[in-house]
Amino acid sequence: MRCEVIAVGTELLLGQIVDTNSSYIGEQLAEVGIDSHFQTKVGDNADRMRASIELALSRSEAVILCGGLGPTQDDITRNVIAEVMGVELEQRQDLVERIENMFGSRGRTMPKNNLLQAQVPAGAEPIPVMPGTAPGLVCPFGDGQVIYAVPGVPWEMRKMIDEFVLPDLRERAGITSVIRSRVIRTWGQSESGLAEMLGDEIDRLDESGEATIAFLASGIEGLKVRVTAKADTEAEVIALLDAEEVRVRAIIGDGIVFGLDDQTMETVVVDLCREHGLKLGLAESLTGGLIAQRITQHPGVSDVFQGSIVSYADSVKNDVLGIDGAPAISEDGAIRMAEGAARALGADATIAVTGVAGPSPAGGHDVGTVFMATHLDGETRVLRVEWPFDRRRIREFTCITALNELRKRLLAR
Amino acid sequence: MRCEVIAVGTELLLGQIVDTNSSYIGEQLAEVGIDSHFQTKVGDNADRMRASIELALSRSEAVILCGGLGPTQDDITRNVIAEVMGVELEQRQDLVERIENMFGSRGRTMPKNNLLQAQVPAGAEPIPVMPGTAPGLVCPFGDGQVIYAVPGVPWEMRKMIDEFVLPDLRERAGITSVIRSRVIRTWGQSESGLAEMLGDEIDRLDESGEATIAFLASGIEGLKVRVTAKADTEAEVIALLDAEEVRVRAIIGDGIVFGLDDQTMETVVVDLCREHGLKLGLAESLTGGLIAQRITQHPGVSDVFQGSIVSYADSVKNDVLGIDGAPAISEDGAIRMAEGAARALGADATIAVTGVAGPSPAGGHDVGTVFMATHLDGETRVLRVEWPFDRRRIREFTCITALNELRKRLLAR
Repeated sequence: MRCEVIAVGTELLLGQIVDTNSSYIGEQLAEVGIDSHFQTKVGDNADRMRASIELALSRSEAVILCGGLGPTQDDITRNVIAEVMGVELEQRQDLVERIENMFGSRGRTMPKNNLLQAQVPAGAEPIPVMPGTAPGLVCPFGDGQVIYAVPGVPWEMRKMIDEFVLPDLRERAGITSVIRSRVIRTWGQSESGLAEMLGDEIDRLDESGEATIAFLASGIEGLKVRVTAKADTEAEVIALLDAEEVRVRAIIGDGIVFGLDDQTMETVVVDLCREHGLKLGLAESLTGGLIAQRITQHPGVSDVFQGSIVSYADSVKNDVLGIDGAPAISEDGAIRMAEGAARALGADATIAVTGVAGPSPAGGHDVGTVFMATHLDGETRVLRVEWPFDRRRIREFTCITALNELRKRLLAR
Repeated sequence: MRCEVIAVGTELLLGQIVDTNSSYIGEQLAEVGIDSHFQTKVGDNADRMRASIELALSRSEAVILCGGLGPTQDDITRNVIAEVMGVELEQRQDLVERIENMFGSRGRTMPKNNLLQAQVPAGAEPIPVMPGTAPGLVCPFGDGQVIYAVPGVPWEMRKMIDEFVLPDLRERAGITSVIRSRVIRTWGQSESGLAEMLGDEIDRLDESGEATIAFLASGIEGLKVRVTAKADTEAEVIALLDAEEVRVRAIIGDGIVFGLDDQTMETVVVDLCREHGLKLGLAESLTGGLIAQRITQHPGVSDVFQGSIVSYADSVKNDVLGIDGAPAISEDGAIRMAEGAARALGADATIAVTGVAGPSPAGGHDVGTVFMATHLDGETRVLRVEWPFDRRRIREFTCITALNELRKRLLAR
């Protein structure tokens, strides 16, 4: 089964919006084992949309159209699909009522334009999952082919894809096997280093077919090792992933692995602090609030996270953190910042960061020189790194590395 | 002149990487007045790449291929273009030397694989702009058509597109007019509010053809009003934009406009502080370091920005900021935080933020309730807002709004 994705919208071609929808759909299709060989962006133009759909139907069994289902004159996806199918649009009374109810429940009356959204090509059906006011469409075509239409609004699109389109595609393709992935999140080894360590295991998997391994460098999110397996049942596939995770961990070492799937370095550190009953605090110069920002974007951290002293000016390092005249960019400076943050914030575990983000050298150090200190159980340790990066990456790599230093100490506690 | 974009790479179809390159190229093409009707993603597969290129050449005069120019076996863009052109690849000695020199200047020897990158289809030329080790290609095709190939690495791609492909395309298309845009950045009005205010002016422009106006809601970056004009010379187009900017500012008011083009709310506030000789400080609870992070991502702010007290825990609000028992989420709490930040950080102008980011209510307030205080010239003012948003947007909209409050006070000073 092959499925193409067509993202509809002139604003996509003009680069005013980046097409992340196709990437999401492509990722999900790959997860369930359906090939997607072409993905196209086309503007809100009937002739070119029709040409794109017909081309896709000439080389794939299924097509997912994304966008153009709104209530305005520009939204012509419904009309073009009807043309391609050679049928008329029909107004569906059940959809009229459903859309009216949605507006009603928000205390608004439905604008007349929204009636357009209740139109469905004859022979097609609305997608039963309908998170917003734009119904999706599932449209049979020719001899067993299918055209889906989903809205361009990302959260509406995702819900329809996950809950209807993917299961429907799997059923049509006769796929009964279950494919699942697990992301093993790492920090502390390069992509080529990990590939070398796991080389023999990847060769073994190539032969056995139990699972596949892929790497994805994700900046501040670390380096992801993705294990994918296929089996007849959910239980079997989970068992395969469990076994493979054990093997990968044994090979690359638990120090390198910091989490799984949606776990981030900051949530892992916060969770470890909570387990140990420790309050966490920061002193940030180089990262300028980035670490605190990463931690506080997650809800439910306030029982652990005390705060951060973003000490950009040297006077703040002296007055608030009490580094007592130590050079601001130095091992000693970082150590005193970490200890000062513990005092000022009432924190048990602290991280302090100081260094040169660039673009110019500072304090006698080259761009990329960074000192990271961790303070725990009355002991402060410091790490010096020279990053060969630009400003943004120096800050991001410092953020994940500094958190990782504390993580390793908490694990060893 | 029509130009299609083909992004090459299986990782794009699998959604492992979002294709931002096509969006960038699409935006640049629109800027110079070249239509792009289709943009395609295709995997590293010779047959499907060839089909995509041939299709694009059947409906457009120019094609830009992006990706697949690296030194590995997967990188087959060069080979497929040669096939489409019906010619052989030729090794170019000038490129061999250039690539060897690049490795040499970094103190490394060139791996043998990189020799592949010195191959050029007969009749094609390397793009003279070459920021990395992957040469781009400009390949004549048929009767006046052209195929460009640029690397998938974004910064290499951008430099080649900006400095070679766009000027070359304009020359081929015989475009001598100059198109320029200016982004007028605003905060404090909704998109529909701005559209209503500017309705008559947009109608006038539709008739006169002097310029066009478009809106783009950009979250934490504010709401952008983009003015685009076309003229025979750079001087004329700048004059048109200057005149239109004056009219737009007169209509929507200077309080709403905070900057132009690449200016951000945080750089504008830092620049205003610098002009007034003021030191800037923050006290962040709800935003948890986000405002400080935004400010410090720009280099050269350390003469103005003192730092931020990220006071997530109430004890930090009391101990470091000295809010003296005021409720943490209240007008009074925000005011005392702003004043405490001025004392603790030695700052003349401060912003303080406290509130409920959710997902649960807190301190007797609903999710979205936010208090923002600004302290300047010994006077502290506070704004209360109820955002109907999720956690991420509550934090982001608070960030730009709080900075904007200080901006307005600095302007009125």
